[in-house]
Amino acid sequence: MSSVTCTAPVNIAVIKYWGKRDTQLILPTNDSLSVTLSQDILHSKTSISANKGYAQDRLWLNGIEEDITKNKRMHNCFRETRALRQRMEKEDPDLLPLSTYPLHVCSENNFPTAAGLASSASGLAALVFTLAKLFDLPTSMTDLSRIARQGSGSACRSLFGGFVAWEMGSEADGSDSRAVQIAPDTHWPELEALVCVVSDAKKGTSSTSGMQQTIESSPLMKERLRVVPGRMDAMKQAIKDKNFQTFAELTMRDSNQFHSVCLDTFPPIFYLNDTSRGIIQLIHEYNAANNGVYKAAYTYDAGPNAVIYATKENMKEIIELIGHYFPSSDEKKSTYFTDPYNVLEGKGFSNEFPVVNQKFNTSVIPIYPPGSVSRLLHTKVHDGPRTLGEDQSLLNSDGIPKNLV
Amino acid sequence: MSSVTCTAPVNIAVIKYWGKRDTQLILPTNDSLSVTLSQDILHSKTSISANKGYAQDRLWLNGIEEDITKNKRMHNCFRETRALRQRMEKEDPDLLPLSTYPLHVCSENNFPTAAGLASSASGLAALVFTLAKLFDLPTSMTDLSRIARQGSGSACRSLFGGFVAWEMGSEADGSDSRAVQIAPDTHWPELEALVCVVSDAKKGTSSTSGMQQTIESSPLMKERLRVVPGRMDAMKQAIKDKNFQTFAELTMRDSNQFHSVCLDTFPPIFYLNDTSRGIIQLIHEYNAANNGVYKAAYTYDAGPNAVIYATKENMKEIIELIGHYFPSSDEKKSTYFTDPYNVLEGKGFSNEFPVVNQKFNTSVIPIYPPGSVSRLLHTKVHDGPRTLGEDQSLLNSDGIPKNLV
Repeated sequence: MSSVTCTAPVNIAVIKYWGKRDTQLILPTNDSLSVTLSQDILHSKTSISANKGYAQDRLWLNGIEEDITKNKRMHNCFRETRALRQRMEKEDPDLLPLSTYPLHVCSENNFPTAAGLASSASGLAALVFTLAKLFDLPTSMTDLSRIARQGSGSACRSLFGGFVAWEMGSEADGSDSRAVQIAPDTHWPELEALVCVVSDAKKGTSSTSGMQQTIESSPLMKERLRVVPGRMDAMKQAIKDKNFQTFAELTMRDSNQFHSVCLDTFPPIFYLNDTSRGIIQLIHEYNAANNGVYKAAYTYDAGPNAVIYATKENMKEIIELIGHYFPSSDEKKSTYFTDPYNVLEGKGFSNEFPVVNQKFNTSVIPIYPPGSVSRLLHTKVHDGPRTLGEDQSLLNSDGIPKNLV
Repeated sequence: MSSVTCTAPVNIAVIKYWGKRDTQLILPTNDSLSVTLSQDILHSKTSISANKGYAQDRLWLNGIEEDITKNKRMHNCFRETRALRQRMEKEDPDLLPLSTYPLHVCSENNFPTAAGLASSASGLAALVFTLAKLFDLPTSMTDLSRIARQGSGSACRSLFGGFVAWEMGSEADGSDSRAVQIAPDTHWPELEALVCVVSDAKKGTSSTSGMQQTIESSPLMKERLRVVPGRMDAMKQAIKDKNFQTFAELTMRDSNQFHSVCLDTFPPIFYLNDTSRGIIQLIHEYNAANNGVYKAAYTYDAGPNAVIYATKENMKEIIELIGHYFPSSDEKKSTYFTDPYNVLEGKGFSNEFPVVNQKFNTSVIPIYPPGSVSRLLHTKVHDGPRTLGEDQSLLNSDGIPKNLV
């Protein structure tokens, strides 16, 4: 039995992917660019074992077995990686014929799906990366990204650490639609992120169907497609220059524009709620009080959760600011803030308004009902997928998950 | 002493005005089109008396005296109408020299400003119409609309009943930027409206500054300006044909697009809140349950209040539907619903879900906290400004308001 265990990170786009020109191959209508967040805080972990004695391919997601034949997108990733392995085996008859062995796949996220954080990007990246390791594929990460892309579009960006562009490409077969690293995490280690998990009663539109509704019905989307190329160039340059001012403004403008075209979709798609909007207004006031020099930038994916980018020096102030206006409910106090870098120096939150610039208009938003933000996760720009030791496997020696639900 | 009292109606745009190409003359960046709502329910009322014995021009708004010299927009309307009167007096020396008399102006809305309903359109329309009557100007309503436009852009549309277009024009002096009636209220008397007053804690961005921020910073606004002309043509045709299907879809799409460009503005402008969004989702479900044949259309101006257009036959059902999902708070029950046409037949609201199509997904939105919608006003398409009798004057025989606050 061969077995491999890997983790892959979450990525949060600063130039958003929204819309496919080919829904089968998952080819996007525009380039996108993301920041990879630390796997210490958020990751998907996947163990795969290959054994000719297994009866069939089997899949467990977060401890529950799923029918692998019904998951077309995962199936794409299996087919592509097995085909690459098969070619290797033909050229080298000494290789184990792993491409013919049934596989057991077990995958878990270390964050609750209920938190509303997109798990498909990290999950499919972990799957493809683990398959590549298992099959010992000599394939480059950019080549692997073309396979991950067919599992879940934005998964291709989770194969790299740091700052990652997904180039839309122009070929009909998708051969030039792939991820490339713009800069590694070590390039700009001061950049950090705060994930604000926002409570929301309603189930939003899935991004898969939502983005195609936008392509079909939003007149404004045409203009967005003309706007993105210039933003991509400017964003790449801002990252190269570690220019937080340009990075912040483009990040906020692009998040807003993505939600604009959702609202211009018919029927309209809403992801932001009143809490999301409160955070946006708070961040704008925070920047305005600093004479318009940006200290923080928000971005929102297909849900109400905010991700706030800021440099290390301002993060404590921002965490206290969010904690002041969006306090924890009493029941969830213990899990409210994940402080891996100990920015609060073990003191926890005070209810006091933090010492921010005196120009700050403290009544810009009201203090929200406790629990409007349920969790704060402090994280930073970090590396790409990691291979773990055998002892970290999610599967036991029989190839069955150690943790079944 | 000469004295005249008039009322002017509220108009609610179905193709939105948002953006000026000339902020002094109030020349818009696109055509717009509105429906005039009944003055029986919502109106601005203005009394003006001219008396050579008055010391100076004076102005009372909703019972409070204001400094008329500081209200530049009203001042524009005084200047323009006095100039027209002066020309008449020069040609006919027998006329009273009213253009030289000081004026006392008293204006009131019959709806609370706190309700968040735009009062500047009806208010400025009432002012200009009353001045024209006082001065006995032979000016056509379309010519008067050019003057009202300089008081408040959308005021020009409140000079007509029924369905009214504001043609943006192309002349630099604004001479061809004026309102024209597309159809009178008698053309489509079945069209009715429900104003849903939505409670909101926060003060929104004023439309005057908001629209210029959009023009300056929203990349998507460019595309909107390309989209509107086609929508104007289609909307005019839909009104001529009394085609509620096209009318409804264009109304909803244009409202959404207006709020999209607000969100694409930097910093973003928000007018819709969670209650507004709940009403949008409810109306889409209501239409979807009717096999996609529209029975209702929502539209939102620069605030969270919804205006729902529907034909008479569906209005009772829609009122019950809104009343079910957005119940009144106990304290405001008596003023919650204004039922001038007695659609509830004196029975008031039941808490039961109304008999709607069985396909309706009743859990599309939750039942909102009582008071999320504070008032419902049932109204219909109706006529333009009205001249009232002397006994209706807001001013006493000394030219002082009868009701001072």
